[in-house]
Amino acid sequence: MTRPTIGVGMLGYGFMGRAHTNALRKIGYISWPPPADIRLVAIAGRTESHVLGAAERFGFQRAVTDWHELIDDPEIQLFDNLGPNSLHAEPTVAAARAGKHVVCEKPLARTAQEAHEVWQAVAAAGVKHLCAFNYRFVPAVRLARQMIEAGELGEIHHFRSSYLQDWLVDPAAPATWRLDVNQAGSGALGDLGAHVIDQARYLVGEIRAVSGRLKTFVPERDGTPVTVDDAFEAVIEFSTGAVGTIEASRFAAGRKNALTWEINGSRGSLAFDLERLNELQISTGRQGFTRRLVTEATDPYLSLWWPDGHIIGWEHTFVHELHHILQAIVYDQPIRPHGADFEDGYRAAEVCDAIIRSNASGRREPVSYRTL
Amino acid sequence: MTRPTIGVGMLGYGFMGRAHTNALRKIGYISWPPPADIRLVAIAGRTESHVLGAAERFGFQRAVTDWHELIDDPEIQLFDNLGPNSLHAEPTVAAARAGKHVVCEKPLARTAQEAHEVWQAVAAAGVKHLCAFNYRFVPAVRLARQMIEAGELGEIHHFRSSYLQDWLVDPAAPATWRLDVNQAGSGALGDLGAHVIDQARYLVGEIRAVSGRLKTFVPERDGTPVTVDDAFEAVIEFSTGAVGTIEASRFAAGRKNALTWEINGSRGSLAFDLERLNELQISTGRQGFTRRLVTEATDPYLSLWWPDGHIIGWEHTFVHELHHILQAIVYDQPIRPHGADFEDGYRAAEVCDAIIRSNASGRREPVSYRTL
Amino acid sequence: MTRPTIGVGMLGYGFMGRAHTNALRKIGYISWPPPADIRLVAIAGRTESHVLGAAERFGFQRAVTDWHELIDDPEIQLFDNLGPNSLHAEPTVAAARAGKHVVCEKPLARTAQEAHEVWQAVAAAGVKHLCAFNYRFVPAVRLARQMIEAGELGEIHHFRSSYLQDWLVDPAAPATWRLDVNQAGSGALGDLGAHVIDQARYLVGEIRAVSGRLKTFVPERDGTPVTVDDAFEAVIEFSTGAVGTIEASRFAAGRKNALTWEINGSRGSLAFDLERLNELQISTGRQGFTRRLVTEATDPYLSLWWPDGHIIGWEHTFVHELHHILQAIVYDQPIRPHGADFEDGYRAAEVCDAIIRSNASGRREPVSYRTL
Amino acid sequence: MTRPTIGVGMLGYGFMGRAHTNALRKIGYISWPPPADIRLVAIAGRTESHVLGAAERFGFQRAVTDWHELIDDPEIQLFDNLGPNSLHAEPTVAAARAGKHVVCEKPLARTAQEAHEVWQAVAAAGVKHLCAFNYRFVPAVRLARQMIEAGELGEIHHFRSSYLQDWLVDPAAPATWRLDVNQAGSGALGDLGAHVIDQARYLVGEIRAVSGRLKTFVPERDGTPVTVDDAFEAVIEFSTGAVGTIEASRFAAGRKNALTWEINGSRGSLAFDLERLNELQISTGRQGFTRRLVTEATDPYLSLWWPDGHIIGWEHTFVHELHHILQAIVYDQPIRPHGADFEDGYRAAEVCDAIIRSNASGRREPVSYRTL
Repeated sequence: MTRPTIGVGMLGYGFMGRAHTNALRKIGYISWPPPADIRLVAIAGRTESHVLGAAERFGFQRAVTDWHELIDDPEIQLFDNLGPNSLHAEPTVAAARAGKHVVCEKPLARTAQEAHEVWQAVAAAGVKHLCAFNYRFVPAVRLARQMIEAGELGEIHHFRSSYLQDWLVDPAAPATWRLDVNQAGSGALGDLGAHVIDQARYLVGEIRAVSGRLKTFVPERDGTPVTVDDAFEAVIEFSTGAVGTIEASRFAAGRKNALTWEINGSRGSLAFDLERLNELQISTGRQGFTRRLVTEATDPYLSLWWPDGHIIGWEHTFVHELHHILQAIVYDQPIRPHGADFEDGYRAAEVCDAIIRSNASGRREPVSYRTL
Repeated sequence: MTRPTIGVGMLGYGFMGRAHTNALRKIGYISWPPPADIRLVAIAGRTESHVLGAAERFGFQRAVTDWHELIDDPEIQLFDNLGPNSLHAEPTVAAARAGKHVVCEKPLARTAQEAHEVWQAVAAAGVKHLCAFNYRFVPAVRLARQMIEAGELGEIHHFRSSYLQDWLVDPAAPATWRLDVNQAGSGALGDLGAHVIDQARYLVGEIRAVSGRLKTFVPERDGTPVTVDDAFEAVIEFSTGAVGTIEASRFAAGRKNALTWEINGSRGSLAFDLERLNELQISTGRQGFTRRLVTEATDPYLSLWWPDGHIIGWEHTFVHELHHILQAIVYDQPIRPHGADFEDGYRAAEVCDAIIRSNASGRREPVSYRTL
Repeated sequence: MTRPTIGVGMLGYGFMGRAHTNALRKIGYISWPPPADIRLVAIAGRTESHVLGAAERFGFQRAVTDWHELIDDPEIQLFDNLGPNSLHAEPTVAAARAGKHVVCEKPLARTAQEAHEVWQAVAAAGVKHLCAFNYRFVPAVRLARQMIEAGELGEIHHFRSSYLQDWLVDPAAPATWRLDVNQAGSGALGDLGAHVIDQARYLVGEIRAVSGRLKTFVPERDGTPVTVDDAFEAVIEFSTGAVGTIEASRFAAGRKNALTWEINGSRGSLAFDLERLNELQISTGRQGFTRRLVTEATDPYLSLWWPDGHIIGWEHTFVHELHHILQAIVYDQPIRPHGADFEDGYRAAEVCDAIIRSNASGRREPVSYRTL
Repeated sequence: MTRPTIGVGMLGYGFMGRAHTNALRKIGYISWPPPADIRLVAIAGRTESHVLGAAERFGFQRAVTDWHELIDDPEIQLFDNLGPNSLHAEPTVAAARAGKHVVCEKPLARTAQEAHEVWQAVAAAGVKHLCAFNYRFVPAVRLARQMIEAGELGEIHHFRSSYLQDWLVDPAAPATWRLDVNQAGSGALGDLGAHVIDQARYLVGEIRAVSGRLKTFVPERDGTPVTVDDAFEAVIEFSTGAVGTIEASRFAAGRKNALTWEINGSRGSLAFDLERLNELQISTGRQGFTRRLVTEATDPYLSLWWPDGHIIGWEHTFVHELHHILQAIVYDQPIRPHGADFEDGYRAAEVCDAIIRSNASGRREPVSYRTL
């Protein structure tokens, strides 16, 4: 048992930092044997006192306030970027060029152009790259993918999905970097919609055209202009001919973290709700939907966990995701198809940009994807 | 108690004929005292043996194979048109011009132009006119309207709705008049989508722009070309600034009669599912949705029925709807706002036409409404 | 087509009178051809003005204040007893002895002894007898029975059922005859529990022992002592060895008409909720429950109604039930197994009495059934 | 920040060992600052190779095959007993007598007598003791307790609960120690029913009488007699006058880990389902149940976790539970009322024994509780 050790450098220490660290610490005993031993080498953040506290709490060996130190650290083999969207491109590219494998939170970048540049640079560096569309790693979502691949739904006709939250419906909710186009790129679209788009691509296939509408309901908060969308709506078409609607909003009163989708095929349908992420609704006969608890040992990722019927939580998606890239690194396996790599990150950004273009032009916009 | 008697002439004897007749027969003892005594005067249909059988079964005094006989019959004060879409305009207009009040099934006509002509002619005749958007008469839907009018949801931001059925997902399903553009005008759009559009208009307000996509998955059945849509998808914008997605499909495997919608406002949200039409999901605090059984005696239309918790069915919407027009006739009350009149029928047709235009043009299409 | 005419005499004109009349009036056109033409001959009630109004509204030819007039009326072939429990035995027996077929609302009588006497007398008269356990006529319930008979659940191990309402939880709710042991026999037990017991017997089989507890939470209302139970709980054992719990309460805040049950067998499980009576939850694989909408044309009783997915209501159970006895009369068919006859009414009363005995004795009480 | 260090010795290394270890490892960074630093000192198990593997995986400093070594180890301050029921009493008492704080999995012992002895011995030792009824630590359950204590439900009338699993419904399922009365004490009763009883006691109050029935459907597996119950059913009465039904089964086809309960009070009702443990169904008005996602930062235990709407899993209950006893140890706080101590473990055993007595006697059995 000569397991390799992989050193991790992390940029960001908010709740995503906590979620990723938790995953990295659990892999060592939840998956057994783990693909590698994890060393939490260093964590970077702007505010010294905060990042020092995070390092102590999460168990990183050291804290730094300049992310370049992570790039220069030879003990770090995996760079995990959880910073705000405006800090995705530069550090991630730098890390890859320094030979480190990279994880980057979604959206990969603020625009498709920026995302393409990141993908190009990172691919050229020859490292493993994963864009953290963690909802691919929900067992029910991967089970859905498996069923669709196996033809259990037949030809897919429809995909409809919403990602609904309510934290901006209060007009007094404060301004944050997420409401500033320069820092975030877009609003509900890039933050929540990117997940919807990635689910669509993972489960149904490539999106070839969109007709979209963005909406900002509250144009100013705390005296600061809101320069991103509060919500978007779009009709989409897939290369396969399937059609659907997608949507995200931070103004859906009573909805907390409601990423839902339904897929209808010629032989059956599936439905999912992130607030009940242990369940997949399956209709493969003529008669109604079966509430399938995706908690069997034979279900995707469930061999890591508990007996049948003992549910897992949101944080577990990160365990599966980071376990996936560790396996990819150690055994030199591809990130795709079950993980999203930076090409997936880039492609989601192209769809987001097409929705923004459609909003402005009033036209159905084709989505064209660049290669490397 | 000198109740008036209202004679009814009906065009059509399929399941809608059964549903309307059932309603007309029940009004006399379910609402008490009823606004009028109903006389089932005559029923018209193409096939003599069928229409004779229907008259006997439903209790009409006579059966005719030429609908003009209904127009000429002085005993008929209310003309109820349940024929195929291509038979909506001419008989309805003729009846109105003969001084009869008119009910016409939805969609009012095959195109907005045709619908406008019907509305114009009927309005000029000075009779009561109701377009049978019966889902306005679901108690939960009317309760939703009341809550929205009372401001319980605040300003409305989102409306999303689908009407999903699965009867065409089988490629061997036979051709019917509903799949022929000349007889039906459109497919899922006019048949199911018209309900969605009417719910949007009844609950949220006027639609001012649409970006739509039609889709025909199976282009030919029984050797006959399918000349209508199997499904449509659209992004819509309301005059108020609210935005949303609407959709209808006859290709949604496992969905039988699933008209669902959700409305999000600045103070709360509502959700509805026609397959559970006795329930309204209400979120007016910060915390989740309440499954409200709309079966209290004080709920809309429920004083007609049973004790709390004793549910009603789909057919009851027709009792409420026909009771509504009878009251309008007897007491000279307006059909609006809780009933849909022919202006509502026309306006829904304008939205449908705009979706068809948008599908062809690839553009977001404004919806403009003509007056009389 | 020489359909017989069956004259009906009804005792009682409250909401049950409305429900039964509605059913009798609908049978003539909903089932086609109906087994008989119905003549609403006479309705009886204590208060002259009320019963006159009911006769006019419901369409009975005459109103009487003495139920004996119904017995003496040769035009009446079917006597439908909807009176309070204390008026079940004498008029029903009298009608049967006069050669009339009889329907009697549940519970058949106030005690097992009284129920046995009624059953004996009526059986001796040779007429058709039906005890109005109308929930046997919910399509989902009959489908459940069919699935169990076909062995789809294997050997039954468990039955658990509650019938929960909330109308007495308010301590200021007024006293009614339902709270008086002399008029009602028992409280939640005979009113709601009798339905639970009948469902158990219809779906699983004979009950052989009970351990029960009665409870009266509010001992006095309007200065009148409450002499019946507000709720009961029991453990039951079936002759087959299956075990379960049953319960009814009028003190379940938030529950309006919640008759629910779940049945677990060696090969599968079923679950039902009367507030969603169009649905049956079915688990016959290893994986979760399927929400089956019991609205297909091939489902029990559904050929009478509407296209797939168009739900029916509570009142429809009476249409099915009265249609059933009319067929039994006209074609001389047995009421059993899908209808409950007076033996079923008597047997339910035996179980109720055993629960009352068990409550008093503190012992598990065997249930023994007398024959004719 | 001079945090104490607490050394843990664990008996058992199966899935409960994994669940407890996971919790102990997470406390150090999920709660911040944690009440103590945890040292995983030693783990004991019968099979050397297995326990060595577990120690390596879970991170214990050493593995032992004789639990007495844990008792003698001065580095251990907390003894966590996850062994089979027959190994609860002796090691736990020995650990307490050696001055170690103790956690013991439920049921505390195989009989009330044995449980009382354990409680007595441990209480006399003056250490902290917690019986691992981990479902008290579900946020929704603790929220329910808080609502009930605050009077939001008024006076409680009803408690009904089932704990349903299906892993024995297959007659070919193998024999395990759980089916042997000497090792397990009882079957579904002590394993699942104990949780139900503890929820009843935690939420409603003390149980004073039971009428119960045990059932063994498959009397032999693998040629070994099954000497425990496969299921039990009981009517219960609380000291307060509330009544209810409780039940557990390993024969409920389609139910995986379905601990459900409903509580009805004079002012409202609550309902819970462990398979959807992030939700509490709340009815405090007259109108239906609200699906409350218990994932707000202000909800019990949720300050440890993620933003609103991001659900947690089954394993999190152990984090809360072990965090609770660590706080109790470090700050010398009581385990009760939110944790279950050994008196609670003993009292649950008294209820189990009374159900067994009632099954044999056929009588309603009072439950009397001994003091120290």
